[in-house]
Amino acid sequence: MAKSKFEYVREFESSDRCLPNTWMVVRLDGKGFHKFADKHNFEKPNDKNALSLMNEAAKSVMKEFKEITLAYGQSDEFSFLIRRDHDLYNRRSSKISTIICSLFTSAYVFHWDHCMVGKTLLYPPCFDGRVILYPDEKNVRDYFSWRQADCHINNLYNTTFWNLVLKGGITNQQAEERLCKTVSGDKNEILFSQFGINYNNEPEMFRKGTVVYRPKDRSKRSSNVNVEHIDIINDAFWLEHPHLLNKIRE
Amino acid sequence: MAKSKFEYVREFESSDRCLPNTWMVVRLDGKGFHKFADKHNFEKPNDKNALSLMNEAAKSVMKEFKEITLAYGQSDEFSFLIRRDHDLYNRRSSKISTIICSLFTSAYVFHWDHCMVGKTLLYPPCFDGRVILYPDEKNVRDYFSWRQADCHINNLYNTTFWNLVLKGGITNQQAEERLCKTVSGDKNEILFSQFGINYNNEPEMFRKGTVVYRPKDRSKRSSNVNVEHIDIINDAFWLEHPHLLNKIRE
Amino acid sequence: MAKSKFEYVREFESSDRCLPNTWMVVRLDGKGFHKFADKHNFEKPNDKNALSLMNEAAKSVMKEFKEITLAYGQSDEFSFLIRRDHDLYNRRSSKISTIICSLFTSAYVFHWDHCMVGKTLLYPPCFDGRVILYPDEKNVRDYFSWRQADCHINNLYNTTFWNLVLKGGITNQQAEERLCKTVSGDKNEILFSQFGINYNNEPEMFRKGTVVYRPKDRSKRSSNVNVEHIDIINDAFWLEHPHLLNKIRE
Amino acid sequence: MAKSKFEYVREFESSDRCLPNTWMVVRLDGKGFHKFADKHNFEKPNDKNALSLMNEAAKSVMKEFKEITLAYGQSDEFSFLIRRDHDLYNRRSSKISTIICSLFTSAYVFHWDHCMVGKTLLYPPCFDGRVILYPDEKNVRDYFSWRQADCHINNLYNTTFWNLVLKGGITNQQAEERLCKTVSGDKNEILFSQFGINYNNEPEMFRKGTVVYRPKDRSKRSSNVNVEHIDIINDAFWLEHPHLLNKIRE
Repeated sequence: MAKSKFEYVREFESSDRCLPNTWMVVRLDGKGFHKFADKHNFEKPNDKNALSLMNEAAKSVMKEFKEITLAYGQSDEFSFLIRRDHDLYNRRSSKISTIICSLFTSAYVFHWDHCMVGKTLLYPPCFDGRVILYPDEKNVRDYFSWRQADCHINNLYNTTFWNLVLKGGITNQQAEERLCKTVSGDKNEILFSQFGINYNNEPEMFRKGTVVYRPKDRSKRSSNVNVEHIDIINDAFWLEHPHLLNKIRE
Repeated sequence: MAKSKFEYVREFESSDRCLPNTWMVVRLDGKGFHKFADKHNFEKPNDKNALSLMNEAAKSVMKEFKEITLAYGQSDEFSFLIRRDHDLYNRRSSKISTIICSLFTSAYVFHWDHCMVGKTLLYPPCFDGRVILYPDEKNVRDYFSWRQADCHINNLYNTTFWNLVLKGGITNQQAEERLCKTVSGDKNEILFSQFGINYNNEPEMFRKGTVVYRPKDRSKRSSNVNVEHIDIINDAFWLEHPHLLNKIRE
Repeated sequence: MAKSKFEYVREFESSDRCLPNTWMVVRLDGKGFHKFADKHNFEKPNDKNALSLMNEAAKSVMKEFKEITLAYGQSDEFSFLIRRDHDLYNRRSSKISTIICSLFTSAYVFHWDHCMVGKTLLYPPCFDGRVILYPDEKNVRDYFSWRQADCHINNLYNTTFWNLVLKGGITNQQAEERLCKTVSGDKNEILFSQFGINYNNEPEMFRKGTVVYRPKDRSKRSSNVNVEHIDIINDAFWLEHPHLLNKIRE
Repeated sequence: MAKSKFEYVREFESSDRCLPNTWMVVRLDGKGFHKFADKHNFEKPNDKNALSLMNEAAKSVMKEFKEITLAYGQSDEFSFLIRRDHDLYNRRSSKISTIICSLFTSAYVFHWDHCMVGKTLLYPPCFDGRVILYPDEKNVRDYFSWRQADCHINNLYNTTFWNLVLKGGITNQQAEERLCKTVSGDKNEILFSQFGINYNNEPEMFRKGTVVYRPKDRSKRSSNVNVEHIDIINDAFWLEHPHLLNKIRE
């Protein structure tokens, strides 16, 4: 039972420390969520409860990890931002990505009954995660702009697609063909002329995704976070909350 | 809303492909499980239901990932073995570790009510995970020997400790001092002389941990796995199941 | 002059330790050697002196690093094999690749006058290097087979090309077009019918490249190495020198 | 001779691309240069010719790689700075470190006869190299401050040590004991009182090391570099040459 003669196997563990002084983004993505949404009858194109559940899970993560100042979610993904000066778990990449991914998943299942009223969870859902490093503040803003632009593009498509199918009475394939090669303007036009929908009046949660951030005032309970569905591509949000990106030294 | 001008941020994602032709072990560890066990009144030194829940979660993982042929669990940890010739997720380390960690966590919460009869889950539990690469079969066996030897050492200690505290009526600190510098023989002797316990008669699940493996006969449902509490340090297990480590080429 | 307030910058150095128990191959490649060969009037298609200089440089490396048991070179490249059980520089990848690359380059310039009789070195030549890990012996043999097969393919092409140009009196471009889409048999035929050359009688140094290996008998000076131009794709070489790949344990 | 069946070995080559938008520093260090200096009778504590040879080698590197805007050398080491926005060799770490290390070494041997007049190079010298990433400009300045502070500390020690030994007539060991636990002021005092040396009048090349940088005016031959022995810890140098650290965007 000598443990020692086996312990050499620990030397095969490799170091994966993230470069110091870089912003860390941890992005989680649902695995097989197309099927998961179908099996659990998620509303098309957006299931408000399912999105709220994602947000609950994100809040659980931010409650646990004060190093996370900002998170952004849309569809079945969520991105968490860790400040460049933090030393969470000695900046070990796999430790950080697995723990955040695990806690998010855990909270998702934990809060299911509360958010998905009347729906039974049929099997355990699963997310993957990764850490991405960004050396400066512009990179960080561009990252979140990329995700929010992605939200817009996908949601406009999905909103048009499902109106065509659910109200327009055409098949999935026909809708796909109809939207093939259309630009944003075309989709807005279809929504308006055919279904009387002004896309800009759609719920902001669907159009903008969800921004969860830690307010500056730390006199409140430090686990306090704001949840908003607002634009983070333009300057306004960042000017209003300069503490989110400011370097610590200055 | 030009997505393209932001998309350069994808180039900051790094490749973390695992070296081909090496065995991959994914080890998960409970985060803060000391506290978690206390809050949920786990039985000391071993909570049979909690261990069964770990095993259920491991089975869920192996049901999903056929590339995993063997898993070993003890206490709040579980290790999964992926064959050297598999190409799961193009062998991307963070993808593999986060998905397995997420699915295990998810299943742990999902199966809680079934296994932990009558106990309410108070908050979402969380695991971390890592991938370790082993170039040859001897390394793999030594890895699992290391974990099973660790199980033995810890369980003998914990069994003695909690008998001293719960039946012997001394404090945690006194028990700690009593066991300080004792060797295995001393602890066996304390158990036997003071509490009439022959350690070797303790349940094998506690002494050996849990081995989950895929049997060779694939005529059965391929998601079929065996769950046993047996020795994997000596040769017998590996000789009986040579398919678990054999190279594919021969 | 406080050094300490700057020393934090050391933490930005990352660990790049190679996985233990894997074979390390360090391959060096000449940078811009096409131009270098032209400027120094290397003989076409093979300059015996220049190849000998490569071999001298390789021997210098092996004289310094006893951990290297085998090296193989052809054209402007050389590959060095470090045993899986060695711990050279704590297996740090960048340390190993830069030092071997630096020493090889240094020896190449150092021995220039001796090997390249009567030719002046016009400017400093340069090599790049990389470390590649191979988990088992079959991978290692396949690696060296890959390089020797590459030597054969290139040398047959180059021999035919330069005979067409230098003796056949056609232009480089015409020779290129002539060889485009030919297979090995075609090139052999061109050499034989047009230039009376039996490719198999060409010098082995050109056809096989150069194998440098440490003989088993360590009673001689330990820096002793053999230099041969022989086949290492088939089994014969490896059966004759089993110590080159045998694991240390057994 | 089928090359294809061996080519799978290329998949074992791993990606080691440096994070985009970070400053890259490549630092080279002489290997075994204590012995190398002894064997070649380098003057103590500083050999002007040997330092000039280092500088020549650095200039050769900067002539070849326009991406390097600044280099700093002292003793047997040299550090090269590559701008954060450059994409040299697709930012592959091992490619960059080995090529710069190889070229430096090559130039060192190539220029030996010219710089080390009358001295024969006895054996090939060797350097190791590494790439270090720095996310912002302050880190970069602190890196170079660290090296120049190191130069000062070592040179003050060495100057005092060798004066004690060469002029003071005590042994190496006695000098070591004498200097043990002394601070800068003590060493300055020994130099002044015992040997009439005002350390601040020592040559700047010895006290400051060597700074090689590309001037802003690109109308001259682009391979033009300045070589100076000046302070780079304080702001003056950086304020005078703002183009060296300025971000490209702004």
